[in-house]
Amino acid sequence: MLALVYRGPGKKAVEERMKPDIEEPSDALVRVLKTTICGTDLHILKGDVPTCEPGRILGHEGVGVIEKIGNGVTGFKRGDHVLISCITSCGRCEYCRKGMYSHCTTGGWILGHRINGTQAHYVRIPHADTSLYKIPPGLDEEALVMLSDIFPTGFECGVLNGKIQPGGTVAIIGSGPIGLASLLTAKFYSPAAIIMVDHDENRLEVARKLGATATVSTKPGNDAAAKQIMDLTDGRGVDTAIEAVGVPATFELCEEIIAPGGVIANVGVHGVKADLHLEKLWDRNISITTRLVDTSTTPMLLKTVQSKQLDPQQLITHRFKLENILEAYDTFSRAADTRALKVIIDMGD
Amino acid sequence: MLALVYRGPGKKAVEERMKPDIEEPSDALVRVLKTTICGTDLHILKGDVPTCEPGRILGHEGVGVIEKIGNGVTGFKRGDHVLISCITSCGRCEYCRKGMYSHCTTGGWILGHRINGTQAHYVRIPHADTSLYKIPPGLDEEALVMLSDIFPTGFECGVLNGKIQPGGTVAIIGSGPIGLASLLTAKFYSPAAIIMVDHDENRLEVARKLGATATVSTKPGNDAAAKQIMDLTDGRGVDTAIEAVGVPATFELCEEIIAPGGVIANVGVHGVKADLHLEKLWDRNISITTRLVDTSTTPMLLKTVQSKQLDPQQLITHRFKLENILEAYDTFSRAADTRALKVIIDMGD
Amino acid sequence: MLALVYRGPGKKAVEERMKPDIEEPSDALVRVLKTTICGTDLHILKGDVPTCEPGRILGHEGVGVIEKIGNGVTGFKRGDHVLISCITSCGRCEYCRKGMYSHCTTGGWILGHRINGTQAHYVRIPHADTSLYKIPPGLDEEALVMLSDIFPTGFECGVLNGKIQPGGTVAIIGSGPIGLASLLTAKFYSPAAIIMVDHDENRLEVARKLGATATVSTKPGNDAAAKQIMDLTDGRGVDTAIEAVGVPATFELCEEIIAPGGVIANVGVHGVKADLHLEKLWDRNISITTRLVDTSTTPMLLKTVQSKQLDPQQLITHRFKLENILEAYDTFSRAADTRALKVIIDMGD
Amino acid sequence: MLALVYRGPGKKAVEERMKPDIEEPSDALVRVLKTTICGTDLHILKGDVPTCEPGRILGHEGVGVIEKIGNGVTGFKRGDHVLISCITSCGRCEYCRKGMYSHCTTGGWILGHRINGTQAHYVRIPHADTSLYKIPPGLDEEALVMLSDIFPTGFECGVLNGKIQPGGTVAIIGSGPIGLASLLTAKFYSPAAIIMVDHDENRLEVARKLGATATVSTKPGNDAAAKQIMDLTDGRGVDTAIEAVGVPATFELCEEIIAPGGVIANVGVHGVKADLHLEKLWDRNISITTRLVDTSTTPMLLKTVQSKQLDPQQLITHRFKLENILEAYDTFSRAADTRALKVIIDMGD
Repeated sequence: MLALVYRGPGKKAVEERMKPDIEEPSDALVRVLKTTICGTDLHILKGDVPTCEPGRILGHEGVGVIEKIGNGVTGFKRGDHVLISCITSCGRCEYCRKGMYSHCTTGGWILGHRINGTQAHYVRIPHADTSLYKIPPGLDEEALVMLSDIFPTGFECGVLNGKIQPGGTVAIIGSGPIGLASLLTAKFYSPAAIIMVDHDENRLEVARKLGATATVSTKPGNDAAAKQIMDLTDGRGVDTAIEAVGVPATFELCEEIIAPGGVIANVGVHGVKADLHLEKLWDRNISITTRLVDTSTTPMLLKTVQSKQLDPQQLITHRFKLENILEAYDTFSRAADTRALKVIIDMGD
Repeated sequence: MLALVYRGPGKKAVEERMKPDIEEPSDALVRVLKTTICGTDLHILKGDVPTCEPGRILGHEGVGVIEKIGNGVTGFKRGDHVLISCITSCGRCEYCRKGMYSHCTTGGWILGHRINGTQAHYVRIPHADTSLYKIPPGLDEEALVMLSDIFPTGFECGVLNGKIQPGGTVAIIGSGPIGLASLLTAKFYSPAAIIMVDHDENRLEVARKLGATATVSTKPGNDAAAKQIMDLTDGRGVDTAIEAVGVPATFELCEEIIAPGGVIANVGVHGVKADLHLEKLWDRNISITTRLVDTSTTPMLLKTVQSKQLDPQQLITHRFKLENILEAYDTFSRAADTRALKVIIDMGD
Repeated sequence: MLALVYRGPGKKAVEERMKPDIEEPSDALVRVLKTTICGTDLHILKGDVPTCEPGRILGHEGVGVIEKIGNGVTGFKRGDHVLISCITSCGRCEYCRKGMYSHCTTGGWILGHRINGTQAHYVRIPHADTSLYKIPPGLDEEALVMLSDIFPTGFECGVLNGKIQPGGTVAIIGSGPIGLASLLTAKFYSPAAIIMVDHDENRLEVARKLGATATVSTKPGNDAAAKQIMDLTDGRGVDTAIEAVGVPATFELCEEIIAPGGVIANVGVHGVKADLHLEKLWDRNISITTRLVDTSTTPMLLKTVQSKQLDPQQLITHRFKLENILEAYDTFSRAADTRALKVIIDMGD
Repeated sequence: MLALVYRGPGKKAVEERMKPDIEEPSDALVRVLKTTICGTDLHILKGDVPTCEPGRILGHEGVGVIEKIGNGVTGFKRGDHVLISCITSCGRCEYCRKGMYSHCTTGGWILGHRINGTQAHYVRIPHADTSLYKIPPGLDEEALVMLSDIFPTGFECGVLNGKIQPGGTVAIIGSGPIGLASLLTAKFYSPAAIIMVDHDENRLEVARKLGATATVSTKPGNDAAAKQIMDLTDGRGVDTAIEAVGVPATFELCEEIIAPGGVIANVGVHGVKADLHLEKLWDRNISITTRLVDTSTTPMLLKTVQSKQLDPQQLITHRFKLENILEAYDTFSRAADTRALKVIIDMGD
């Protein structure tokens, strides 16, 4: 089968690989129909994720069809169409019993990281019963690829942690796919204002189309973002600040704009420390939250798609065949030029 | 009347001052019976609190007797024995309506800070109906001085924000009065372990007497505190880390020992920023909380004292007359030598 | 001044009454601009509310202008335009400090019940600082009359108590003004389904226009409502059942259709007991909640109106001058014929 | 092997039965060391549980040793000492993913009900990985039998649902084993008052020894229980009323004594409906909860036993050998005479 393989920092290749097989009773073998590329895949390629070894097939998102199941799998059968969760969960360990699947002692984020992933014709899914979701009939499977990672991430790490409420004010720092997924799911709770922040004017335009009530540019030369957000909130600051970039400057911007009693919900993947201005924040009654997505809300999100509260399709901008996945990587990694948000990789027949 | 007056950085004096009077319909004039000294008073004296101007009578804690009320006060009458809250609250503004009295737009922490305080024979209390608490009959009034500030602070900022649960593990960094108030109120929720941390062996001994299940020393030369706490929790870290000191090193210790899914509850007053190691914490599903005490739990704490779930007396180590308050300040500020926790200032008859 | 006066069971009259005045320092005198009639007013007229004595001016809803304030009032001044809350709250008692204003020891629902109400040119409002809300500039004051009672009631007692969630299923039994207010505020949380139930086809039609995803008729002869709701939820039942009628049959219908883990949120005013089928419900992990509206969410609701998440105007069907209020009562009480939802009484100039 | 077998209403027998074996990959075969008898077993024997068919081995509690595991079991191995949960949970279905194990679509309460149970030398446990708990070293295994059902039931259905808080007031109606388990776990949250209610003076005496702050008798002739509880709470009523009997009179007593804002937490198994006095309760801002124990707190309870916050041994009054289990049933069913709380059945060697 064809697969996109990580070959060490800066290197990737499309290779012919052996089709995987069931290894444990709880495994399922899934024929992938569609997958996508995540910002995390780019991190791996930069060499930022040393736990991912050369030779690994990348990808932790996708939809597919069950090809074969282990004899311990009871929830799926050959032919079932499934959504693959980016988080593998045993459903049994202390963390899984609390719904913290991201910290599953034998799972978590392992697909396309510690084991081979979904950017290939087939993928082996451990703990299949608790790591796959049956696709309800009538749903657009391509759109559901967005539910493998990006929507649960924006929703759980940003919106739920951020305790967004009707009438509240929200700023989302970063208007890339994750920030936009936060925006679309923030709307579930009817906040009065959603202020989207980015340095890329194109992304702010998309944000406005998707429901931002205001946008603030952080393009070079514009140092007034904090002030603009304070002005937009009559000097109060926002009830919820969602950090969806992953660098110190954007996190520290959240510290400047958070209202007393507010929540800074971190979504970004950070590589270095940030300054926490406790001398200003110690008496502000705020919370700061971090989270690796648990995908515990996948069933809820599927219901919102079914009932048309959420249209995940809105984030898909490009489509490629698996054999052209290198071009897809190129398009996705030059998002400022290509205006790419999420790209679909179609496996063909 | 006699009063302890702030005279600028490094300076304080016992002075004869005019007895205050009612200024607004919602005021009460309280004859102070007993008060105490807070770590914050020492901060003011160091010059760390520029909003406190020279000439100010210090003190934001105490019990007393209502001497006179404004014509808008309906909940108290002359002769009522009352507990004075360190937080003044109008009960009407947006923040008060949410229970965030610390951010009351015409109150908050103003006693002994922006207006004259309780280290005097008399004190004027604004918004009396929502800033004083009637003392239930039969309670030891001296002990209740501990409910003006220190117990609500330890309980709200440390224990409630820290979401302590039966069977959980807690580390409290700092075993001074605030840390010990957190310890005593943490026990309300029956955690499995309460690990107290300090550099002062005497305080750790007190902590063990008051119910710490383990203690860890951070005295100079002992750099293994984080490791010791990890060992005490089988390598998991603690579910709740309470920062009760207010310096970067202790806050950063909390970051090292927090378990996935845990809460770092900041209680300490910080003067400088700390490093927030998001590169380690972004995927740990933790929360960090800050809070200036709201004293919204004062009624609850009064009930726990009445039902003998809490004995606030345990933190009182020394007693002085008001005329000897300078000696009280000396004793309190040299706690390592004097073994002082909280000192009572008695106004006499 | 003109006023609508309760004259004992079955009797009401438009009378000339003395203009009220300030009685307590915390009072405000409000010139009423617009008011409305509530189902509770009809209950009083039936003689169902013995605590309301003959001679009482009815009405507990409205908007107006501050005419005069007591010397303890600090949040309002003459000329301020205000929303009158149906719940009077002192902001000081044990219940008010918990946000349970409905149980205020010197307030609660007293307007147009234990003291004279708003169906008159002027009304005295006790505890004005915590019982009135300043009207933000630019809002339609007529529409805000709906925020005195009906929207906080539907939202707090129905939607918030009912813990409505994105993707969840809701049934609202009763599609009168309260049920429709629950519907409109239920949409804040993006449930997948909102099933409206009523015996009046006209009201179901309104419900569909306002966003119901399905409607079920309980008109005489149709005994299959429970079955229809179960079918609409694939046999699971609903996550939230809101009772917005107040008779045993509708409450018991909620018991039949509630899913395991669900909430029955009672909004209706009940005059007799209902059967609680604990033999079927004891192991279903459900909650049943009751509540007299606290109007603690009025500030939040005002923000949702400002941000156009909520359009309260949608419930207004008729308008009358104060001098024609008897006609307004007639129209409102014959809602099945007149298709009245809420009627506005305009005081004129 | 020897087993206690249900033989139809009113009939039970000790019989020799075939040792069970693994049937599914997720099964474990457990050699039972100790078990006990539950009130529910008596219900079955009365014929109240028609889903339990004659021929069934009873019992859903116990500790044992893993004898054999299916090839899908990963968390246990032969020789492990385990606590058997009364609730069987697949960990995969919609309900299990929410922690509502009681409603597991292929589990729930099935042991000693729909499949053979623990009152035998061996028992087959389906979904072993998510229905058994490893016994931490050093714990008293006999005491842990109390954690199969009675302590999670009292804690989850009574204490957690009842939202018990420091300083709060609690009444527990019924002082049998379940009521006492609620009492012991209520103490985790340091309420100010725990009022135990029963008609049996012996049980009230036990309750006082175990920490009740007051007791109220409902023995025949004493009709003043509600009044006594109101007097004990200064006329306010209790914040939490736990129903631990299961008949209309005790549930309705809870309705009479609940304070505004309080919770009635039903624990009892009810066979008939109760009267719900909505005409008195509709405006009281209360909640009523029902729940079949989920045993989702078993890991938490194990930690409280390890840290000595909980001593489950306190409920054990009698011990019998398996061959004398009929005598154990007799003793347990005549609790008023024998003063039995929980009886241990020891399997011998």
